[in-house]
Amino acid sequence: MRPRTTAAVIAVLGAAIGLAGDACHVASGTTHYDVEGMPTVWRSAVWFPVSVGLAVLLAAWVSDRSGFPAARRRTRAEVPAGAAAVLALYALTAVLRHQPTTVSVVLTASLAVLVWAWWDPSRGALLVAVTAAVLGPLAEMAVSAAGLAHYAADADGLGGVAPWLPSVYFAAGAVSSRIWAAVARDGA
Amino acid sequence: MRPRTTAAVIAVLGAAIGLAGDACHVASGTTHYDVEGMPTVWRSAVWFPVSVGLAVLLAAWVSDRSGFPAARRRTRAEVPAGAAAVLALYALTAVLRHQPTTVSVVLTASLAVLVWAWWDPSRGALLVAVTAAVLGPLAEMAVSAAGLAHYAADADGLGGVAPWLPSVYFAAGAVSSRIWAAVARDGA
Amino acid sequence: MRPRTTAAVIAVLGAAIGLAGDACHVASGTTHYDVEGMPTVWRSAVWFPVSVGLAVLLAAWVSDRSGFPAARRRTRAEVPAGAAAVLALYALTAVLRHQPTTVSVVLTASLAVLVWAWWDPSRGALLVAVTAAVLGPLAEMAVSAAGLAHYAADADGLGGVAPWLPSVYFAAGAVSSRIWAAVARDGA
Repeated sequence: MRPRTTAAVIAVLGAAIGLAGDACHVASGTTHYDVEGMPTVWRSAVWFPVSVGLAVLLAAWVSDRSGFPAARRRTRAEVPAGAAAVLALYALTAVLRHQPTTVSVVLTASLAVLVWAWWDPSRGALLVAVTAAVLGPLAEMAVSAAGLAHYAADADGLGGVAPWLPSVYFAAGAVSSRIWAAVARDGA
Repeated sequence: MRPRTTAAVIAVLGAAIGLAGDACHVASGTTHYDVEGMPTVWRSAVWFPVSVGLAVLLAAWVSDRSGFPAARRRTRAEVPAGAAAVLALYALTAVLRHQPTTVSVVLTASLAVLVWAWWDPSRGALLVAVTAAVLGPLAEMAVSAAGLAHYAADADGLGGVAPWLPSVYFAAGAVSSRIWAAVARDGA
Repeated sequence: MRPRTTAAVIAVLGAAIGLAGDACHVASGTTHYDVEGMPTVWRSAVWFPVSVGLAVLLAAWVSDRSGFPAARRRTRAEVPAGAAAVLALYALTAVLRHQPTTVSVVLTASLAVLVWAWWDPSRGALLVAVTAAVLGPLAEMAVSAAGLAHYAADADGLGGVAPWLPSVYFAAGAVSSRIWAAVARDGA
């Protein structure tokens, strides 16, 4: 697959997962958009899926360029599995809305580690996962501080964002770290 | 294993999963049986596990006969894993009873794709999964229309059945599509 | 890795999982400690993580000594996955606090079988899992009878402990059964 096509596929995939996961958070009341009149896609302000798609593409491209060795090679046929695992964890956090913080953090962190250990238990993937788990919530804190959107009062215990948010970014980062090669590689 | 024995094992396995999953739905109030005096097994009217067992057998037999190539060979030792994955998703839908439709559909659809992508990410298994995801809910709509059973008022948004029901049938179809060969094949 | 180091790693890992899982149960109100003045670690009385660590070490050591053949070899790189799977199931039981018994038992039992079938679908691991599923709840019944701790009134239906408790011990036993070799074995 040509690099331009690979990039487009990854950005669209990231945006789609962002849209579906965010729709869960809006539906469960976990998050609210605060600027009226913004064009929306499904339940998200249009900037959200665009940002997620570009962030996933950036993580995928930088990881691929960096040349970290993978512990497990992934092919195009496995891309749906990686995407589904991240989206399932994302949607699960909407279900955990009214759970105690300890419960939601321990459960999502365990599942995030499981996604990393299954997808590619390498140091490179771990580094991307940890970086995403730090930068993602920081970006959402900035969004919240800028008044664009906010987390519900019972789900904003981590500087204005949800305490389980790093887990979701960790899993997304782990899968993103190898998604470029997986999408680009045709067949087994 | 002789074909007759394979068929019996698959039908009993399907009926057992149907019984355990249905018991969850009755316990959570997701579904109700509406005809009194019907003989029951555990919490189900007797026709339910019989129907599920025969449907799983039919899906398994037709898939095996059709000769679609499998992306991943499964053996008898892996049958408990396939059965457990489907039953876990089935039971999870009972937990999701009071969740918003968006949340329950996105979560169960992600997990259903994950089950397919793990068990056998082939086009043949996908075809069986999609067929099951269409025919299964249609059959349950007919059951509901016939007055034999119904879904709770907050779980009947898809023509009288639950919106997440296609996800459960999708996963069941994916696993069923390769279960004949897996049960028949002795050892690794 | 030297046997003494392997033993220490396994005991600490078991204690850490016990601590994190137990914190979920205390946070969700599933369990309560009944003796005041006991030194605590995180949310547990100090004897709890110590007991879990020693029990996991015992299960791991006895399983390794017994020489049961493994269906799947596990290496050190896979230890985080095994630990995360058990902890995720443990934390999930806190989420299931107010679910009907049928639902929580069917869901956790399915996931426990899935953990065994994924980690090591061997008869040896099954034997350890079943033994743990019997002895673990019996030990907790004794703890409860001794007045040290108790399960909430809506989660004590199995002789004073939770009906889903055998599922958690089953999964923990399955993973423990091969953890000695996995920790001791360096690399792939």
